Amino acid sequence: MDSTLKQTLVDAIRNIPDYPKPGVMFRDITTLLGNARAFRRAVDELVHPYAGGKVDKVAGVEARGFIIGGAMAHQLSSGFVPIRKKGKLPHDTVRIAYSLEYGVDEMEMHRDAIVPGEKVILVDDLIATGGTAEAAVKLLQQMGADIVSACFIIDLPDLGGRRKLEALGVNVRTLVAYEGH
Amino acid sequence: MDSTLKQTLVDAIRNIPDYPKPGVMFRDITTLLGNARAFRRAVDELVHPYAGGKVDKVAGVEARGFIIGGAMAHQLSSGFVPIRKKGKLPHDTVRIAYSLEYGVDEMEMHRDAIVPGEKVILVDDLIATGGTAEAAVKLLQQMGADIVSACFIIDLPDLGGRRKLEALGVNVRTLVAYEGH
Repeated sequence: MDSTLKQTLVDAIRNIPDYPKPGVMFRDITTLLGNARAFRRAVDELVHPYAGGKVDKVAGVEARGFIIGGAMAHQLSSGFVPIRKKGKLPHDTVRIAYSLEYGVDEMEMHRDAIVPGEKVILVDDLIATGGTAEAAVKLLQQMGADIVSACFIIDLPDLGGRRKLEALGVNVRTLVAYEGH
Repeated sequence: MDSTLKQTLVDAIRNIPDYPKPGVMFRDITTLLGNARAFRRAVDELVHPYAGGKVDKVAGVEARGFIIGGAMAHQLSSGFVPIRKKGKLPHDTVRIAYSLEYGVDEMEMHRDAIVPGEKVILVDDLIATGGTAEAAVKLLQQMGADIVSACFIIDLPDLGGRRKLEALGVNVRTLVAYEGH
């Protein structure tokens, strides 16, 4: 990735100090999404390696992963699969529990959303500790998906999420990394 | 819109009887989103009239509107603006209350998400009674948006949502209508 693009993205991301709690610097991508050029270029960069090949599905994690994943799926002429918080999908689902900072939550997908062997890209806006992404990877693997890569606009590498996914054999792609978290 | 496309979309939408309660036929678009060809064609049809002109922002309603809106914004090289349930946006917001079947909820946008005069397309997956869409329109109008159109894949015309938006002076575009609701 060229450094001009990286700078465009960094400039478009808003930094909010002490959110959601004191001492945390929140990386707000809504300003990047709202910036036509930055959003266009971020999505184009994420899909670039897959333009020639075949990706069957892009799976986006609710809710910000839906925005980026919808754009990626359309651009690649792939299907889109929503990975949602529990209780929001109307048909038969598979579900997985995962740990949050305080407590446990569950995410789910429709049981027929993936045909075993399908090539799938997982996408969310940001990877931090990787708890959510790891659960999504396990859910996709359980359904027989061939995970081509997991894509995120922002990486907080000091929180270890990327290493967690790589330990599961997943190729991780991110556009902007913030050290020091 | 040609009738072949309409049939492709109708065939891709899953009908779930008695969901979320007895007597209701739920129109599940996850099967359309997961169908690469149907998703591609639905988004292309929605953006088609705007390909030549300039749309500054596509505003998507959480959560399914994020998927379609993200794809539309990328395709049009527009920015994307999330309209979210209250409490999920990290910066200064404007908020509006709206009625649900049982009770009241609130949605919000970042106060700086729209510059007055910007041309904006509003998008969600479905319009039924139009309560959510009407609130979103009022929020956008309050921020000075020039609403080019409100786009939905599915219309349930008997529930009156389209008329409600048209009464606010909004151009409404939908791809598939189900009568009898």
